[in-house]
Amino acid sequence: MNAATPTPTPERTRPVLAIHGGAGTLLRSQMTPAKEREYLAAMESILLAGQAQLAAGAAALDVVVEAVRRLEECELFNAGRGAVYTAAGTHELDASVMDGRNLQAGAVAGVTRTRNPVLAARAVMQHSEHLMFIGAAADAFAAAQGLAQVEPAWFGTEARLAQLRRAQETDSGALLDHDGQSQVAAASGPIDERSKTGTVGAVALDAQGHLAAATSTGGMTNKRPGRVGDSPIIGAGCYANDATVAVSCTGTGEAFMRSCAAFDVSALMAYAGLDLAAAAERVVHQHLPQVGGSGGLIAVSARGEISLCFNSEGMYRGHVRGDEAPAVAIYGEAGE
Amino acid sequence: MNAATPTPTPERTRPVLAIHGGAGTLLRSQMTPAKEREYLAAMESILLAGQAQLAAGAAALDVVVEAVRRLEECELFNAGRGAVYTAAGTHELDASVMDGRNLQAGAVAGVTRTRNPVLAARAVMQHSEHLMFIGAAADAFAAAQGLAQVEPAWFGTEARLAQLRRAQETDSGALLDHDGQSQVAAASGPIDERSKTGTVGAVALDAQGHLAAATSTGGMTNKRPGRVGDSPIIGAGCYANDATVAVSCTGTGEAFMRSCAAFDVSALMAYAGLDLAAAAERVVHQHLPQVGGSGGLIAVSARGEISLCFNSEGMYRGHVRGDEAPAVAIYGEAGE
Repeated sequence: MNAATPTPTPERTRPVLAIHGGAGTLLRSQMTPAKEREYLAAMESILLAGQAQLAAGAAALDVVVEAVRRLEECELFNAGRGAVYTAAGTHELDASVMDGRNLQAGAVAGVTRTRNPVLAARAVMQHSEHLMFIGAAADAFAAAQGLAQVEPAWFGTEARLAQLRRAQETDSGALLDHDGQSQVAAASGPIDERSKTGTVGAVALDAQGHLAAATSTGGMTNKRPGRVGDSPIIGAGCYANDATVAVSCTGTGEAFMRSCAAFDVSALMAYAGLDLAAAAERVVHQHLPQVGGSGGLIAVSARGEISLCFNSEGMYRGHVRGDEAPAVAIYGEAGE
Repeated sequence: MNAATPTPTPERTRPVLAIHGGAGTLLRSQMTPAKEREYLAAMESILLAGQAQLAAGAAALDVVVEAVRRLEECELFNAGRGAVYTAAGTHELDASVMDGRNLQAGAVAGVTRTRNPVLAARAVMQHSEHLMFIGAAADAFAAAQGLAQVEPAWFGTEARLAQLRRAQETDSGALLDHDGQSQVAAASGPIDERSKTGTVGAVALDAQGHLAAATSTGGMTNKRPGRVGDSPIIGAGCYANDATVAVSCTGTGEAFMRSCAAFDVSALMAYAGLDLAAAAERVVHQHLPQVGGSGGLIAVSARGEISLCFNSEGMYRGHVRGDEAPAVAIYGEAGE
């Protein structure tokens, strides 16, 4: 796909930022209004910070990286602090970033000590000749770049550890079921934390008409160590191209990898002439279900169209455009 | 992209197998006819074995995995035994496989003890609920599946070690230059082993009309440990879909990842209506060069079209169709 110039806009583009905090099965029956407000407020706060950056002329790349860094720092979401535990009681984190201006990208997988994996992904993009580092080498690269390192236990929280214990008590293997909600403790958020779909991400269109995307995850509770999903895979969980669209995905990672879901949205726009809404719906409601994929994606096109599209019961999501008030949601219909 | 039924063929499809052993800068001036014959004979032998399998009705998946296993076992190519050394004097191997029948896929990255990484990739696909494992966990999974493990030194050869030593003597960092050919020892093959493009791969169309692709690599000489290229990334270095095409790539991995090169060929066919030759040329001669990408790909379409397309000076490559004699080549023009 060409790194072509975006469609010219009359004057300055009205900037857009969209974020997600994962998708999955809802636990509405167990939810309290207070817990819901906590999630919505966290997303709104991050959108407002990004809106201020964009209004000040910040680049889309800087805005998505900062939004994902804040999502990583927020314990509510499964990325960075608050990441889920592997079956071995450890944390393994993955992240990626892509700059639509030049199709540059960076990714890390299986980091265990780098406080903000999205910053490591950006450092790989900007300060190495490579795109992806894995494991201890990724942490070492991040440390050499001056990025904060933490003890692995820093990522953990009481709530996440309780999730692991429940998973290990109720399942013999990795977490597969989306049922049995009665066993979920009150520590869970509105979306079933035991589903495989914990990820955070951001996409932005800046005032100069450039696009960027970033994605980060703490993996899946009780997963087998060493498993990598779509979050650090360019074209699967993350893609940005000024000629078409910026996309960040969340869901059953393997299906998004088999579908090349993020790039597929871009390809449908570039080659089949679909607008963003049609392209996102084709991927989320046709291509992903064909390979058993559950989850969703957020996307913003070069023309400023927004899609927040999912085939699961819910997705933590929000967006802000220009100087409008942010919109945030968990349940309900997909779309802007 | 849909996992649709392949285009119906009049009777049984004439099966096709294509393989590559890497692409890059040529060292023709330093080459001996004997050395060239050694490379060509190795590829021809592997094609003949695959041809026999296909004639006996073997599935494309089995044929590409076996072809790549043989390429891994061959010291001439940078995958499995004969893999290049990292800057740390170690070996890190990556592989992937995809089955066009159902879009199932498997991958491993950073394995150091599994004798045949392509078999590990297949095992991940078939015997786990995941798609990708990295590092020691990938080796452990392979071992638990009964796949042969070796001491890391098994992958090394005298010739590869000499390459590392030369690289470390002549460069301060990773191997970047494609010049200075006078310093290349006679141990090199026809293509400059110091280029970043060592990979092997196979694509096949079987008599039932199914497609499959597999890719494997030993990485790049003197690379920073932990770097992962396109070879284990579904959509970048490997893709197969019965509705369109099977693709295996080789080249400067980062560019293939940024381009989602393998999936891009499929998308151009499915969405833009290009035939295989046009789609492969668009990717290899337009999209990849736009991001600095050098190398090539092999592909076979659901209709039996073959493309062996590269923008570098040479690519070890060959193909066989039905009961015809295999065709193998190193230099020259791309195409069947």
